[in-house]
Amino acid sequence: MTAVRALPTVDQARQHLVSLHGELVRYNLVVWTAGNVSARAHDSSGHDVLVIKPSGIAYDELSAEAMIVCDLDGRVLEGSLAPSSDTAAHAYVYRHRRDVGGIVHTHSPYACAWAARREPIPCVLTAMADEFGGPIPVGPFAIIGDDAIGRGIVATLAGSRSPAVLMANHGVFTIGATATDAVKAAVMCEDAARSVHLARQLGEPVPIEPDDIDRLHDRYQHSYGQSAR
Amino acid sequence: MTAVRALPTVDQARQHLVSLHGELVRYNLVVWTAGNVSARAHDSSGHDVLVIKPSGIAYDELSAEAMIVCDLDGRVLEGSLAPSSDTAAHAYVYRHRRDVGGIVHTHSPYACAWAARREPIPCVLTAMADEFGGPIPVGPFAIIGDDAIGRGIVATLAGSRSPAVLMANHGVFTIGATATDAVKAAVMCEDAARSVHLARQLGEPVPIEPDDIDRLHDRYQHSYGQSAR
Amino acid sequence: MTAVRALPTVDQARQHLVSLHGELVRYNLVVWTAGNVSARAHDSSGHDVLVIKPSGIAYDELSAEAMIVCDLDGRVLEGSLAPSSDTAAHAYVYRHRRDVGGIVHTHSPYACAWAARREPIPCVLTAMADEFGGPIPVGPFAIIGDDAIGRGIVATLAGSRSPAVLMANHGVFTIGATATDAVKAAVMCEDAARSVHLARQLGEPVPIEPDDIDRLHDRYQHSYGQSAR
Amino acid sequence: MTAVRALPTVDQARQHLVSLHGELVRYNLVVWTAGNVSARAHDSSGHDVLVIKPSGIAYDELSAEAMIVCDLDGRVLEGSLAPSSDTAAHAYVYRHRRDVGGIVHTHSPYACAWAARREPIPCVLTAMADEFGGPIPVGPFAIIGDDAIGRGIVATLAGSRSPAVLMANHGVFTIGATATDAVKAAVMCEDAARSVHLARQLGEPVPIEPDDIDRLHDRYQHSYGQSAR
Repeated sequence: MTAVRALPTVDQARQHLVSLHGELVRYNLVVWTAGNVSARAHDSSGHDVLVIKPSGIAYDELSAEAMIVCDLDGRVLEGSLAPSSDTAAHAYVYRHRRDVGGIVHTHSPYACAWAARREPIPCVLTAMADEFGGPIPVGPFAIIGDDAIGRGIVATLAGSRSPAVLMANHGVFTIGATATDAVKAAVMCEDAARSVHLARQLGEPVPIEPDDIDRLHDRYQHSYGQSAR
Repeated sequence: MTAVRALPTVDQARQHLVSLHGELVRYNLVVWTAGNVSARAHDSSGHDVLVIKPSGIAYDELSAEAMIVCDLDGRVLEGSLAPSSDTAAHAYVYRHRRDVGGIVHTHSPYACAWAARREPIPCVLTAMADEFGGPIPVGPFAIIGDDAIGRGIVATLAGSRSPAVLMANHGVFTIGATATDAVKAAVMCEDAARSVHLARQLGEPVPIEPDDIDRLHDRYQHSYGQSAR
Repeated sequence: MTAVRALPTVDQARQHLVSLHGELVRYNLVVWTAGNVSARAHDSSGHDVLVIKPSGIAYDELSAEAMIVCDLDGRVLEGSLAPSSDTAAHAYVYRHRRDVGGIVHTHSPYACAWAARREPIPCVLTAMADEFGGPIPVGPFAIIGDDAIGRGIVATLAGSRSPAVLMANHGVFTIGATATDAVKAAVMCEDAARSVHLARQLGEPVPIEPDDIDRLHDRYQHSYGQSAR
Repeated sequence: MTAVRALPTVDQARQHLVSLHGELVRYNLVVWTAGNVSARAHDSSGHDVLVIKPSGIAYDELSAEAMIVCDLDGRVLEGSLAPSSDTAAHAYVYRHRRDVGGIVHTHSPYACAWAARREPIPCVLTAMADEFGGPIPVGPFAIIGDDAIGRGIVATLAGSRSPAVLMANHGVFTIGATATDAVKAAVMCEDAARSVHLARQLGEPVPIEPDDIDRLHDRYQHSYGQSAR
């Protein structure tokens, strides 16, 4: 995440979050009402706000109108429903990482298995080198209710090229320059968690050399897709 | 489950059970005609009855009209089809747990794996602490045909905060203040059974301290979603 | 399978096989063009014939018209396409088991795992006792091309209450009084193969006593669903 | 792959690639924008070209028009988007294997698990003997950016009847006389990777004798489906 992108308006973010939450369902990263996506947006005065899913609402019932707009301290600015119970964690990350435009939280099952053992996912596949630039790290055990989760995310990701962190005994948080990038990281995190889990079940995966990880990560971040990032 | 809620009418329960059975299919908790959901309802005289799926009918063919209404001894009051073969177990639970408004039974695969070993699912994920308040317990081995299954469910759940019980070598029963709550518990039970299974395959999950489980459970039961319960 | 049922006409069987092949897809029992369902039917002269899927045709492209009608020696009577390459095995079973009205063949993955080890699936879940009345047995290794597969199916199932057999290093064959019953057995076989696989991954499942298996099987075969069989 | 087939036109290939990429999604072989299918086609002058997916485009957004046409050195001839980052590997294979009409690349999870351990998948199921004629081999570790991946694919498959190769720590490449055949091989490769993984988790699969593998492979390649190949 090197480039700063133009932030969406609140209305753009509301609309976009509907389809991005649909991606969490499509990739089986969430069950029932667990999990959430947020986006940083510009309000009509040009201030940064965050837009996030309401708490405990079924994915089928999410609409652009139902999304909640909060300031970066997590206080509700627009919306009749209570925001996600993870709003404080999202807000903490937005306050301390100016480069973050989107955040995702899931309890995706293979990633949770690594998180329950508090074990980082080793980088043994080229797709992991591409997206994560090394292992997917584990953050501290933190209880919901204050800034502990947000602090854990920021501190753990500060020492890593990974956009994903496994919070101990809890689940996954991912960050991105945009909300789409954060959703992509959540999808790739579960995919990596699964493939490496399967690899480890029948023996030891062969590590990838650090130099090769660097080359793969550099190339992917700068020349994959339709434009350099 | 602390609050008593207004019971649905029989017609409301019939309609609601159609969509709730659809959730069992969506989350891959059932195959073919196995599994069932029931709801406690008020009949036109204000008496408690239970509404349940007919036996051996395909999920695609379920309709509000096909649901069977029974008294709390499991005798059919309305319906031309035979009720679920698990009706006696549901009826026993409704008779002995006035706070239960809905019951679900599944043979969901990861939960069945724990049930076949007669091993409780340890509470090693915050989502388990939230929903179950501790491990998911194992009930006795009981053969269908009398009150043995119902007694096993009630006795096992009496000593637990969990709304789910793994009946030995059989499957899952969940309870809730409403049928929706019981379906949610069945979904979360399989999700926990799977994540903890995966965690255990490659080592030992780190336990969550009992005090932290208490704090998580208390917070989730009282402040998650759109209203305190 | 105790009762003889009225056989479908060829046209009824053609139509029915379209939806039954759809069940194989829905339950992820098959990939690409592998797998097949057949039904015994009465032709216009009242003779027994078998109706089966054509070979190597995509599931999406199956229609009633595309199904192939063969005599019980496997010779094509109606149809412009080649019949399933497993037709000889189906024909052998229909010739030697008058009580069989439908047959299913799949390479469903968990069942194939047991088949590759040539290991019967032990009866450790009540749903297995209900449907299979004991373990799911393993048949011999047999190469396609003569009656070896058919002989192996018939010989193995002769000593079992199970409607499913795991053919060594190959896959699953199931039989039923109707094609629907055979499809149900294929669905339940994969479900059992998966749950018992998962149970065994983390320890030893507790066996169910033979007397209890008998009671469960007897009850399920005679009083589950909407009519005694 | 013994018969040379008539090549599609560029327009036929563009259209066909849309539905074939849909098969990768349907069989869960890819996530997000990873994976790709290409086809060899004849341009209007009768020269061989390759048609391939653009880089980093969502599967839902693929259209015939969006596909990229390249010469067999991987240079773009038609298309406004950048071609798949794997284009050089595809081009290398087309240049060195005149019999190849289609190529698929995926990171399907069970196959990736074997690839991460650099372990061939042993041939212990008749369906593997049919499609692969033996074990699925492992190719070298190669970094994207030059001909290393293409060389590894061609060298590894030269010593094998398998149309699939597991590239070390990376993923799957499959070849076929047509793009459909290559997609089929990718589907069957993941299916085999999964079933043999499951078999190995609880013990050792029984091998199939080399003579039986030969007989199965020969029969399947020449008499399965609706025409000899």
